[in-house]
Amino acid sequence: MDLESITTDVTHRDWQHVEETDDPVRFAMIGIGWWTREQAIPAVQSSSLAETTTLVTSDTTKADSVAQGVDSIKHAITYEEFHRGARSDAYDAVYIVTPNAKHLPFVETAAELNKAVLCEKPMEATIERAEEMVSVCEQSQTTLMIAYRMHTEPAIRRAKELIDAGYIGEPVFVHGNMTQPIMELIPDPDQWRLDWELSGGSAAMDIGIYSINTARYLLGSDPVRVSGMAAAESQPFDDVPDEHISFQLEFENGVFGLCSASQNAHVASHIRVTGTDGQVRVEPAFFPWDDRRLHIDHGEGTIEVEFEQIDQMEEEFEYFAHCLLTGTEPYADGKHGLTDIRIIKTAYESADIGEQQKLET
Amino acid sequence: MDLESITTDVTHRDWQHVEETDDPVRFAMIGIGWWTREQAIPAVQSSSLAETTTLVTSDTTKADSVAQGVDSIKHAITYEEFHRGARSDAYDAVYIVTPNAKHLPFVETAAELNKAVLCEKPMEATIERAEEMVSVCEQSQTTLMIAYRMHTEPAIRRAKELIDAGYIGEPVFVHGNMTQPIMELIPDPDQWRLDWELSGGSAAMDIGIYSINTARYLLGSDPVRVSGMAAAESQPFDDVPDEHISFQLEFENGVFGLCSASQNAHVASHIRVTGTDGQVRVEPAFFPWDDRRLHIDHGEGTIEVEFEQIDQMEEEFEYFAHCLLTGTEPYADGKHGLTDIRIIKTAYESADIGEQQKLET
Repeated sequence: MDLESITTDVTHRDWQHVEETDDPVRFAMIGIGWWTREQAIPAVQSSSLAETTTLVTSDTTKADSVAQGVDSIKHAITYEEFHRGARSDAYDAVYIVTPNAKHLPFVETAAELNKAVLCEKPMEATIERAEEMVSVCEQSQTTLMIAYRMHTEPAIRRAKELIDAGYIGEPVFVHGNMTQPIMELIPDPDQWRLDWELSGGSAAMDIGIYSINTARYLLGSDPVRVSGMAAAESQPFDDVPDEHISFQLEFENGVFGLCSASQNAHVASHIRVTGTDGQVRVEPAFFPWDDRRLHIDHGEGTIEVEFEQIDQMEEEFEYFAHCLLTGTEPYADGKHGLTDIRIIKTAYESADIGEQQKLET
Repeated sequence: MDLESITTDVTHRDWQHVEETDDPVRFAMIGIGWWTREQAIPAVQSSSLAETTTLVTSDTTKADSVAQGVDSIKHAITYEEFHRGARSDAYDAVYIVTPNAKHLPFVETAAELNKAVLCEKPMEATIERAEEMVSVCEQSQTTLMIAYRMHTEPAIRRAKELIDAGYIGEPVFVHGNMTQPIMELIPDPDQWRLDWELSGGSAAMDIGIYSINTARYLLGSDPVRVSGMAAAESQPFDDVPDEHISFQLEFENGVFGLCSASQNAHVASHIRVTGTDGQVRVEPAFFPWDDRRLHIDHGEGTIEVEFEQIDQMEEEFEYFAHCLLTGTEPYADGKHGLTDIRIIKTAYESADIGEQQKLET
């Protein structure tokens, strides 16, 4: 691979061969908080292969304002109505963006209704519930994709192409970080991301998962060992183990990973893979509004490739719809998502007992 | 602190108040390998407060060519002659740059001869020998400094000033890395850095120490816990535990550290501190020939400060000579160096048994 192909048309969708359809995938949005309103629905509006037809919410009166200006939205139903199968002829797939611990029942109902599922990360709040989700979808042959934005982010895909082509030689280390001040972004001490029962953990589950999952994606390898160190010192974090957390990982292919995440630090993110012959780094990396840069070092200085901001959620919905329309299994299936839950929960255990832990693969 | 003071006269020596002397500190160089010849002796020649008068070597015939063009060098003596006190009126201090496991006897003799000691890092090959070095110097009131280049490197000092001034808020994470392909740089499988008895370890002892020590310096805090993961897969590394090594650290002040080092990877180095209000990163960071850059992020984009290459060894010798001439205790004394040996050796133990280890402070 030469750099030419990386630095030309950097945002092309290498995964796409169907670009239009008369029969777009019709989505029911389950949960209509700010992420759905400001990110998911506009993204689907911009997409060619998907449309939003249905809102599923605890409060259908809220749905009216959400539906305003989105002609494709025809129905708003309650969670209870969803579970009873109301309006199920109006959508082909669901997008689940409720608190982590509430994902599973919606997946179960979607599976019964024979709908495909795009479920936000982390897929559930415990290993057991994530395993149950995988099992339900396998038994019912339900298509399940976990919504990792990074797998369709061009800067990350270009980095992976370079790594796969051997441009940095054999990977040796991966460093990753994602940090944000959640109490400044969402000034509510009662928010679900700080509630152990609803979230299953905070810094790791909400944002640490980006470094870990993107490392797995870039390396094409999963961790076999993890050491966790975690701290929760400030009052809003007294229900979770991880205001701050660090992960030390050993991957199947021998690479060592060093990842960190904090819910109480400056907004920052990066991922870096150092190899025997070079280094790639995406920085900033993980926030949707970032102007990403891919920094490539191959011996004679560093090349920076700037990426115009694409709509990551549009890429993700388009990819998922493309999978459904072409009968392709999504990359991030349920087992892929389960691996992250195992890594994070095992890191909590490691932090608790002070021992490195082996991971099932 | 405003950025103005950082970006103006970035290479100033904030530690210096004596800039000339009629009575420079006279050095005996112990070990005259390439580092002494190409780095240390030219650095001392450029310095204002030091001069090289004496070479100590296994082979005094080699000394002639080394002394060529350096008028201040008057004597070349063997190691045996050094230990017998030969020419000890010709030097005030020694610089020790032999293999790690051979530092202690030279320090012992220097202490007997009442000479100050600048000893290369890592200070010795085992905890016991490092402790003995500290003890010998304490009992004899010998001034001992461990030769960490980064403490007088302007890019690192400016980063520390920013951190100390609260510019990034409270530090939360520090990431560091140093990697090099040692078998390409020194194509000798029998070199001492790959010999456990002489080195006491490879990636960690030779270069991992940069990330660890610079993290300690920047944070003004020492680790209280370490988890190590190490691998030695290629044949030249079969005598040491660490062709590659990663360190997960918890510091006294609650910061988590994630450091890596490899003797078989692309030349790369960086150190990054992420805080509650900002981030500083020096990249490249640790190789003497680097054009260092300090990347400062405080919320409104990143500022890059370029540093012209200074002679790190000149800074280091000038600082040490300045300490001796002004009766100031060097920052990196024996106990400071011993802490790094403890961290590294405990990381090896952690990697071996698969448990996080507490560290004495």
